[in-house]
Amino acid sequence: MAVDVPDLVSRARQGQPRAVARLISLVEGASPQLREVMAALAPYSGRAYVVGLTGSPGVGKSTSTSALVSAYRRAGRRVGVLAVDPSSPFSGGALLGDRVRMGEHASDPGVYIRSMATRGHLGGLAWAAPQAVRVLDAAGCDVVLVETVGVGQSEVEIASQADTSVVLLAPGMGDGIQAAKAGILEIGDVFVVNKADRDGADATVRELNHMLGLGESRSPGDWRPSIVKTVASRGEGVDEVVEALEKHRAWMEERGVLTERRRRRAAHEVETIAVTALRERIGDLRGDQRLGVLAERIVAGTLDPYAAADELVAAVTEDR
Amino acid sequence: MAVDVPDLVSRARQGQPRAVARLISLVEGASPQLREVMAALAPYSGRAYVVGLTGSPGVGKSTSTSALVSAYRRAGRRVGVLAVDPSSPFSGGALLGDRVRMGEHASDPGVYIRSMATRGHLGGLAWAAPQAVRVLDAAGCDVVLVETVGVGQSEVEIASQADTSVVLLAPGMGDGIQAAKAGILEIGDVFVVNKADRDGADATVRELNHMLGLGESRSPGDWRPSIVKTVASRGEGVDEVVEALEKHRAWMEERGVLTERRRRRAAHEVETIAVTALRERIGDLRGDQRLGVLAERIVAGTLDPYAAADELVAAVTEDR
Repeated sequence: MAVDVPDLVSRARQGQPRAVARLISLVEGASPQLREVMAALAPYSGRAYVVGLTGSPGVGKSTSTSALVSAYRRAGRRVGVLAVDPSSPFSGGALLGDRVRMGEHASDPGVYIRSMATRGHLGGLAWAAPQAVRVLDAAGCDVVLVETVGVGQSEVEIASQADTSVVLLAPGMGDGIQAAKAGILEIGDVFVVNKADRDGADATVRELNHMLGLGESRSPGDWRPSIVKTVASRGEGVDEVVEALEKHRAWMEERGVLTERRRRRAAHEVETIAVTALRERIGDLRGDQRLGVLAERIVAGTLDPYAAADELVAAVTEDR
Repeated sequence: MAVDVPDLVSRARQGQPRAVARLISLVEGASPQLREVMAALAPYSGRAYVVGLTGSPGVGKSTSTSALVSAYRRAGRRVGVLAVDPSSPFSGGALLGDRVRMGEHASDPGVYIRSMATRGHLGGLAWAAPQAVRVLDAAGCDVVLVETVGVGQSEVEIASQADTSVVLLAPGMGDGIQAAKAGILEIGDVFVVNKADRDGADATVRELNHMLGLGESRSPGDWRPSIVKTVASRGEGVDEVVEALEKHRAWMEERGVLTERRRRRAAHEVETIAVTALRERIGDLRGDQRLGVLAERIVAGTLDPYAAADELVAAVTEDR
């Protein structure tokens, strides 16, 4: 069923939550009208400040997100929250039960909350999440918080697409090592040690300081990541997190880094969409005799997979 | 430095471990001679029985792999082990310290053991692992065990490329739910409940039986996954695992399922290589003015990412 996209966009821009939700659904579901939606949103995007939040399970991510929403709301900002789960290969039943903790914001017209699960294929979320951010941006959110659930590569990829990346840790979880493993030290602009009322918080801060110092040699002009201690469940330290975020934002704006990051992000986004489109063209050949014949020859040992891939690429790029 | 590929392949086929290691390095490092290597291996591949082993951390994966190697060695089979870590976006320092447990096989000329970490980009391992399997296959391994470290989407993808997929569980880890989440129930041909001397082993078997019964309605001719209890650290139940594997293999061979699976795997492999090649063509445009200009226009709001991607796809497919 065709949707009246200009009307939907105009209603989203007036702040109607159902219009915003509908637009995200169109984007997430890769609707045939996706292109129309994105074209209609383009002039209104690029205003929101996009903050990525990442961290291992148990560090208090959704509590921290919720506390950040409260802090920004107190400052009169409109806030969008996108909670994405890149760890599940099957969409739908993402473990987002803890979303209920965001309940306090559910009736606030200045807050949009949305959960997304992966679309069942690699690169699915990397592709859909930036589009959903564009919707929230165009709908007038001043800040969009992108919270990733789970750990791993996609998480790093999604977080690295934010203007500012926040990495959450908690004391005594061996997080230093985990963070190093997931490559999260490299992407963190602001580190938050949550549950700072627990034993070991200072040790975690020290370890973090140490590891950040060990990182690839920073140039003198580079951003030195902030480290903030919080007890998100009691709102402690959350204003300091907002301060650290604003400091990083100001630092980026002064140096033109924000625009540079956004350009890189846009380039990456375009690449992802283009790769997805080409992948789909290849997928379209799945029902085709050609791929079946190539696979048979590989199994028989009369063709190697690279030579077969050459034929497939030729079929995709020359058949048009 | 150009390698004498025919010589290397011939030495690998004579069972020289260094030649095998060198070929895997060429494959893993995406050497310029990769195509030559794959073409040279093609006639000799397709003989090994490929078993995927998967399971959450703590279930005793490397102990089980090592015990399986011993069992196959007792039966006089040559065994290759490929331990892959799809969870780390950065290659090199994969957490494979527990590889030392495989030490007992290190001096056995009938066993090749190799660890692989992801190459730093999505789809990296999905692409390299099957090529490494081909090397081990051509080198005369009767059985290749592909053990994935960590959990998530790539793990499922890699495991599903095996002839037979073994899913390892342990009592009392809430594995049933975890397995369902990761989509692992769908890919398991043989389930192993390891650490079966612990409390709750029978409960895990029951839960597993229940969940497998709940799965999508199987046709009468479908394979009913086996469930085997083991204490891998003492070698208990491991011969039963080998029996279950051989039963599954025979079942597949009788019905032509093995060839069918391998064709599907080959088709998937070709698709992955083709997508990677096209992705690289797009990546080649990164230094190009065109992508920079497109990204600038997106940030300025004068172009949407889909229209930009169209231009990128056109550049890739028509410029040749």
